[in-house]
Amino acid sequence: MPGPTSYFDPTSLDTLDQRTAELVSRRTAALGPAYRLFYRNPVEFVRGERAHLFDRDGNDYLDTYNNVPSVGHAHPRVVAAIAEQAARLNTHTRYLDEATIAYAEDLLSTFADAVAATLGNLMFTCTGSEANDLALRIVKSATGRQGVIVSWNAYHGVTTEVAAISPSLGGMDSLAPWTRAVRAPGTDVDFAEAVEATIAELDAFGIPVAALIVDTIFASDGVRPDVPGLARAVSAVRKAGGLFIADEVQPGFGRLGDGMWGFARHGLVPDLVTLGKPMGNGHPVAAVVGRPDLIAQFAAHGRYFNTYGGNPVSIAAAQATLDVLRDEGLVENSRVVGARLLERVETLARQDARIGGVRGAGLFLGVDLVDAEGAPDESLALDIVNRLRDRRVLIAASGPANHTLKIRPPLVFDDADADRLLTELAAALADA
Amino acid sequence: MPGPTSYFDPTSLDTLDQRTAELVSRRTAALGPAYRLFYRNPVEFVRGERAHLFDRDGNDYLDTYNNVPSVGHAHPRVVAAIAEQAARLNTHTRYLDEATIAYAEDLLSTFADAVAATLGNLMFTCTGSEANDLALRIVKSATGRQGVIVSWNAYHGVTTEVAAISPSLGGMDSLAPWTRAVRAPGTDVDFAEAVEATIAELDAFGIPVAALIVDTIFASDGVRPDVPGLARAVSAVRKAGGLFIADEVQPGFGRLGDGMWGFARHGLVPDLVTLGKPMGNGHPVAAVVGRPDLIAQFAAHGRYFNTYGGNPVSIAAAQATLDVLRDEGLVENSRVVGARLLERVETLARQDARIGGVRGAGLFLGVDLVDAEGAPDESLALDIVNRLRDRRVLIAASGPANHTLKIRPPLVFDDADADRLLTELAAALADA
Repeated sequence: MPGPTSYFDPTSLDTLDQRTAELVSRRTAALGPAYRLFYRNPVEFVRGERAHLFDRDGNDYLDTYNNVPSVGHAHPRVVAAIAEQAARLNTHTRYLDEATIAYAEDLLSTFADAVAATLGNLMFTCTGSEANDLALRIVKSATGRQGVIVSWNAYHGVTTEVAAISPSLGGMDSLAPWTRAVRAPGTDVDFAEAVEATIAELDAFGIPVAALIVDTIFASDGVRPDVPGLARAVSAVRKAGGLFIADEVQPGFGRLGDGMWGFARHGLVPDLVTLGKPMGNGHPVAAVVGRPDLIAQFAAHGRYFNTYGGNPVSIAAAQATLDVLRDEGLVENSRVVGARLLERVETLARQDARIGGVRGAGLFLGVDLVDAEGAPDESLALDIVNRLRDRRVLIAASGPANHTLKIRPPLVFDDADADRLLTELAAALADA
Repeated sequence: MPGPTSYFDPTSLDTLDQRTAELVSRRTAALGPAYRLFYRNPVEFVRGERAHLFDRDGNDYLDTYNNVPSVGHAHPRVVAAIAEQAARLNTHTRYLDEATIAYAEDLLSTFADAVAATLGNLMFTCTGSEANDLALRIVKSATGRQGVIVSWNAYHGVTTEVAAISPSLGGMDSLAPWTRAVRAPGTDVDFAEAVEATIAELDAFGIPVAALIVDTIFASDGVRPDVPGLARAVSAVRKAGGLFIADEVQPGFGRLGDGMWGFARHGLVPDLVTLGKPMGNGHPVAAVVGRPDLIAQFAAHGRYFNTYGGNPVSIAAAQATLDVLRDEGLVENSRVVGARLLERVETLARQDARIGGVRGAGLFLGVDLVDAEGAPDESLALDIVNRLRDRRVLIAASGPANHTLKIRPPLVFDDADADRLLTELAAALADA
């Protein structure tokens, strides 16, 4: 079970203003206790634009958290594409639709030649959870094996199958018996050695490895752009007869600033790639990209149909998002603005010992907050998250010790946005 | 494995016109072999309106198949709601959003008092598959049990967990070891007796029953509006400590013409209800409605967050769909037009011995096609499906023997649409 978090505590209703308290009460009554709200003082937004969200009073919040509206909140080109297509036609993949085929071809063309030669097919789902779930179905069907290796605090989604490989969701005791989590990255343990030991352990249990799956930025492991041993770990898994799934739901679509896909930074060619969150800028669309021979083995056991997956409106949203990403140069923006932001947070870290570590690639940064002994300070991280919310900057804490500030804004984040984040972060630290 | 179907045979590319053949080739190259296309001669649509789809040449096809665009293809109110909300804000359930709360309250109010008193909470997903998957997570968490009982040819979705309770997808050998399919309905076996025997069998295997889950119109079992013994089966499951999940993805939202929900026709109050397909008229949105005590037991083991699930744009689509359903009296339309359609198909059946059985509720009809001995005639059914496609009427065959025509149009289907269907069905039968 996750420990204390930056979520609202339902027993603190009396600390809220009347409208907020009423909304929270109605919400809890209707949606039940499994849902969470961000912040000690939850926020209600009514409008979004670029990297900014606005509350009912017109107050402007800087969004450094939301990676889904990747080309900016309510981007007019994406909105227009959705509206135009919805007014015309919305069906499914059992009829021919040229735009769906063209989008699949376009997306596959964003992979470098060596990768595209390997990963020739694309299958549509609606969510990253469904994409990871389908990838595991394909892997298990193709290998006839069950064993899955994940990183220590991995998160891969919420279906039964992917929740059972997501220690960050319900803790180690919620994992399936065929799942093993390795004690890296973010520790002294070498990732390749940990994976090799785990392959041997799975073999000893009679559950040979089917796949290693990793989020290639290791977002829930504290944001780890560089993981020595990852390429060797993938080789070890393949040598043992398993496959490699790159979960690109968080790092993909240019966020890391260095090309479109996170796995490429590690010099890897995956067997399957899963896509999600930013793919439709908020519209529910996701996908699996994979080796045609694996998908053929899966197809030999049955057809695949996802009612909403790859419907023409979802495709219109995804195509417009991809077009904007290219036309507005947002991958390059992520690289340039992200690099400057990282440098400035590093400067701040040299002035404040409570910042114990800073890592990042493009517009995905992790900032560790630590106590006087240099140990993870979750309570400080949660305090900063809530102080920043009060200063109208949206951010979250994550990682195994929940002491890492996760900076992951829409990719239209600009230098003025970065200025504001730095100013408010420094002020929040000064007050904490 | 399903047998021959009304899908396009990829080896028949040379039977198609040039444009269609090119699209099919590009599609197969990009999406791979797990996807299917309807019909020997696949169709490409460019526009939809009410119960009609239009191809590139402006030809009007009558849609008697698509249940997802329930209030009619491209309904202007739903389109406007999506466009307006997308232009303003699209976030997620970790911020407060009044419209999301109001929709949840509105939807919960559509349940009859006795049901609403039991089913107090609603959780959002993006697809019916995710809804059934989440319902099973809740059930297994609350009961600590694994056993799941389904109908013989059940279909509940495509995630790993729900594919493993869906014999219609990959056959009996694709089911999980904790799944049991009962040989009813549509046979002489009494449903309650079959379920009771299965509960005992699961007990003998040391896998006590966690849940009985049924689609309350038994769509993939050949469309079964009346299943004697269903209520007794539910009682038996509860007596054994299990729960009842009503899968309303197909029958729900008024399709059966007799109120909003299919389970009510059987006099049942489920423990959990799953919703999907027509909920957003094609926009990906789905939900689980359930007993608060069960959801609380689930929530005790971890939070639930579905990135796109219940986002403001999905909610706008769902609210507009629900508003139109009520404002245009579509449940009543389904009852009235469906009853007249059923009567006319029955009349046709009295004139043509190849129609071996007709069943229906509202605008959900099953029409069995049989050979001279009265046995299921799959080949005739597939021939009729393709002849109707050539006559610009969209329909499909389904059921365990794949000999049942499934009539399941948008709920705006009117008497003129019914006339056209009857005329073309009679003509297709005359030619067959």
